[in-house]
Amino acid sequence: MTTVDTPSTSTGSRPAFDAGKLDALLEEAGIDALAATSRHNVRYLLGTYSLFFEHFDAVADDRYLPALGYVRGRLDQGFLACSPLDVHHFSNVEPWTPSLVASGTTSVDTAAAVARLLGERGVETATIGIEDAFVPLRFHRELTRALPHATLVDVSPILEELRAVKRPDELELLRVVSERIVDAMAATMHATAPNTTTREIHDRLASEEVARGLGFEYCLLTAGTSLNRAPSTATWDPGGILSLDSGGTLHGYLGDLTRMAVLGEPTPRMREVLAEVQAVQQTARAVVRAGVLGGEVYEAAMATVADLPDAPHTAFVAHGIGLVTHESPRVIAGGPIPYDPEHAERPLEAGMVLSIETDMKAVDVGFVKLEDTIAVTADGYEAYGDGCREWTVVPC
Amino acid sequence: MTTVDTPSTSTGSRPAFDAGKLDALLEEAGIDALAATSRHNVRYLLGTYSLFFEHFDAVADDRYLPALGYVRGRLDQGFLACSPLDVHHFSNVEPWTPSLVASGTTSVDTAAAVARLLGERGVETATIGIEDAFVPLRFHRELTRALPHATLVDVSPILEELRAVKRPDELELLRVVSERIVDAMAATMHATAPNTTTREIHDRLASEEVARGLGFEYCLLTAGTSLNRAPSTATWDPGGILSLDSGGTLHGYLGDLTRMAVLGEPTPRMREVLAEVQAVQQTARAVVRAGVLGGEVYEAAMATVADLPDAPHTAFVAHGIGLVTHESPRVIAGGPIPYDPEHAERPLEAGMVLSIETDMKAVDVGFVKLEDTIAVTADGYEAYGDGCREWTVVPC
Repeated sequence: MTTVDTPSTSTGSRPAFDAGKLDALLEEAGIDALAATSRHNVRYLLGTYSLFFEHFDAVADDRYLPALGYVRGRLDQGFLACSPLDVHHFSNVEPWTPSLVASGTTSVDTAAAVARLLGERGVETATIGIEDAFVPLRFHRELTRALPHATLVDVSPILEELRAVKRPDELELLRVVSERIVDAMAATMHATAPNTTTREIHDRLASEEVARGLGFEYCLLTAGTSLNRAPSTATWDPGGILSLDSGGTLHGYLGDLTRMAVLGEPTPRMREVLAEVQAVQQTARAVVRAGVLGGEVYEAAMATVADLPDAPHTAFVAHGIGLVTHESPRVIAGGPIPYDPEHAERPLEAGMVLSIETDMKAVDVGFVKLEDTIAVTADGYEAYGDGCREWTVVPC
Repeated sequence: MTTVDTPSTSTGSRPAFDAGKLDALLEEAGIDALAATSRHNVRYLLGTYSLFFEHFDAVADDRYLPALGYVRGRLDQGFLACSPLDVHHFSNVEPWTPSLVASGTTSVDTAAAVARLLGERGVETATIGIEDAFVPLRFHRELTRALPHATLVDVSPILEELRAVKRPDELELLRVVSERIVDAMAATMHATAPNTTTREIHDRLASEEVARGLGFEYCLLTAGTSLNRAPSTATWDPGGILSLDSGGTLHGYLGDLTRMAVLGEPTPRMREVLAEVQAVQQTARAVVRAGVLGGEVYEAAMATVADLPDAPHTAFVAHGIGLVTHESPRVIAGGPIPYDPEHAERPLEAGMVLSIETDMKAVDVGFVKLEDTIAVTADGYEAYGDGCREWTVVPC
């Protein structure tokens, strides 16, 4: 195995996130304190996460639930409630929170600790932000019981906004994870023999990603003319195409890219459809720079789609990416996410990162797609992991 | 990469779980229908799980949440509410639920679908079981709003009980995952050069597990005399010991084992302390058979601990293992889980699976531990992945 040099988000006596921006967002919303409990927001606010519970959470009939507590304007009152199983890791990395409490491993333990710690900070009757889509009912019941005079409100949109513009250390992680995923895809494509099942190719890609120091998240793939993107006993046969769309993580930061291969030389028709997809992708990225409205990226891409010979079966999507696979700026409708029209009407900022994706369901060729990672800069963009965007030709 | 032959839980026109037992448990608790939403219980009741969302759930400011719906006594009314991103996988494996609804990718989408589907089945005013520790507040709010006359109760203990005795196909998965983890540990130990960091060893083990077709869950490890079990820049140096405690999954089923290595020949003292740990493990497993009370395993092990030269720094824990790392039968107190004294007072049944673990904090040697997987049989036990329980000697 190659030893990989992995950058990390910084920990230390001060947090890496912009506390001034968080305070302003909380004040605007009338929120006095927050307790973040989701994997992505705890990681964002803390700079690290539990190693033991990074990939699972269930214990007995309850679940692990960490809580990062923050009182507006008071970094000195920050706290982390976590499991005794986390203590070794946190003694190694020393996160910024002045208070670290190994309060237990269940959601009830954590709710009790959060109530006590917020009470000690004098905000037990204040407005407290929690994550409605991530706190379990059991946590909410216990917190409500223990803090009967607090007003609990959803803080999720504020934390999504806080994460929207990435710091240089976050951009570096997103660059590295994207490069490693493309490298893992190329290795997988070149190592695959004719007539291998998509299940085996899926598992091989997972293995190649983990061997490069990544967490494996998912792989959607197609072989030949099939449009079914789930791994199965279907095989990749000579003359057929392969699409690999995969997500992997590095310290929680997601790369999400799609690349194409063919077993043997691509046909003229294969070259034509990939060129169409590339044309849409190029149009979209060419528009990107700080100050452009998110919706302009979508409109430019869709204008190119409209002119394609294969327009009727071509789709374009773009979404922010970071610790969450679809996050702010959610510039256009489509994909699995709730669309927020406000995102389309706001200007892109330097440090935002977009995943832009064009796919074509070409019945004569198969599922043809490119997905690229585009970091917004002051005067344009930088593409992460931008190799292998032509047909990867695998001899057979 | 070696291609691995992976067994799978069956899908088909009938579910693999014991519907009669579930009906009896629900009736005893007065529950008319249930909507399971946790990863482990959806997988258990369905026989498979989303591939796209197997490792993450966050999307925008909400989360993916599947729901498996079941009306007591009515397999014909079973349903799955899932994401459009799941449809390709489920069209490949064809789960047993007569109704499969791609209702959306957020917890709000799922709550609305569950309310509608339960309403169509005529149980909108009934007692409905949900998982209190796993449903997000946002799901609960929407479900309560949409089903104002339903009584929502916690169904978690019933589902934990339903999973306690494993079927032959589950036992086979637990056997295979345990064997592969031990094999991955041996490969990692033998491939490690002196002075490698524990972070690198951790990443190597993850890679070896994934290369064997497993999901990597966690690895706690120590090197030399350190008792800190989190990966770091600490190195495994000549003459020092290494403990590897790791969890991996196969179709969601967890293996969790600990094995020991030494760089160079073990000292007499090293042989002594591992023999002490082995003595406790042997005592515990020798007691195991159907009909024995869970607490008897604990008492036997603790009696052996009491006689050890290193008794004061030796600990014993045992817990059920399956789709959840600590699950029924939770035979003794200790570890991260809530202790349930009823578990200690009930007889073990054939098909239950225990993880038994003994660790010793020997300041002169380091952290010495064995953790084994013990399946209960009618007249004894079967140990899964039972190799490498002596010192693995790595030349240096």
